[in-house]
Amino acid sequence: MIYHYKTVAAMKSIRYVIHPSELLIHWQGHRARTRRVIEAFPQEALYNHCIGSLRPFSEMVQDLVTISTLAVHTIVPATRTNRPHMIALNHTKARLLSLWDETTLLINENWDELSLERFHETIPFWSLNECKVYEAIFYLIDTEVHHRGQAFVYLESLGITAPDF
Amino acid sequence: MIYHYKTVAAMKSIRYVIHPSELLIHWQGHRARTRRVIEAFPQEALYNHCIGSLRPFSEMVQDLVTISTLAVHTIVPATRTNRPHMIALNHTKARLLSLWDETTLLINENWDELSLERFHETIPFWSLNECKVYEAIFYLIDTEVHHRGQAFVYLESLGITAPDF
Repeated sequence: MIYHYKTVAAMKSIRYVIHPSELLIHWQGHRARTRRVIEAFPQEALYNHCIGSLRPFSEMVQDLVTISTLAVHTIVPATRTNRPHMIALNHTKARLLSLWDETTLLINENWDELSLERFHETIPFWSLNECKVYEAIFYLIDTEVHHRGQAFVYLESLGITAPDF
Repeated sequence: MIYHYKTVAAMKSIRYVIHPSELLIHWQGHRARTRRVIEAFPQEALYNHCIGSLRPFSEMVQDLVTISTLAVHTIVPATRTNRPHMIALNHTKARLLSLWDETTLLINENWDELSLERFHETIPFWSLNECKVYEAIFYLIDTEVHHRGQAFVYLESLGITAPDF
């Protein structure tokens, strides 16, 4: 089969620059760093320390787990796991870390189900109401980095040095 | 000119999913939100308030301006402006905001100079030593979101409600 040069030019003109595997590595890199920040908290402070009207870091992490799980199920309808979207509140650091690790697996196991086209399809999503799939992934990464920045200040206010990335 | 199907298949197999204009909109969306957070600080607190060993938010912003400017000059060697990489410390919120706006313009004015290939070329960059161009851009976005998360806690500790995104 042969293609006219205009077809090829049209393909080239798409000019996308981030590969799905690069996006996954970027995201999981952040998730590994956030895991180290969860670990740096003493159990008591993880569940009770907060500043102003902000929530304890455990609640932020619980949210991250919930919306990441929801996102995977929305983006990949035929997910390979049957994990519920809403996860019951938990009360130990060990359980929070294992939820984190399950989510890491859930993302990795379903990533290859994403077609190129899927990244630009519109989905209903969380507080954004609706957005494109790649925007949902950016939102998840950014929300995580935002809360981790807050966790750094919590640790500092407790006299604990945050992990060095 | 015609192409063999294998050439086209190879092109298709690249499977990039983020377009340069999408990345720019994503970045500048964050920069607009960060500008609102700078504005939310009283001048005195912007330059003096900190928690633990962390720096005042003005110093974090100054760093973001410096590394963004450095990045644009490194990524686009023929930048259309001759702004110095290192920017002298400043001492007013108004000056900090105008530096922010100059950086916004610098990024926009040079974005179209970036070729598709450039995003995957390796450059020397800041504390990463060297990285690919798209990784440098992700780093800039993430560092900004990280510091903005810290700024949210600073505002809360001052009894100021952070802007609603």
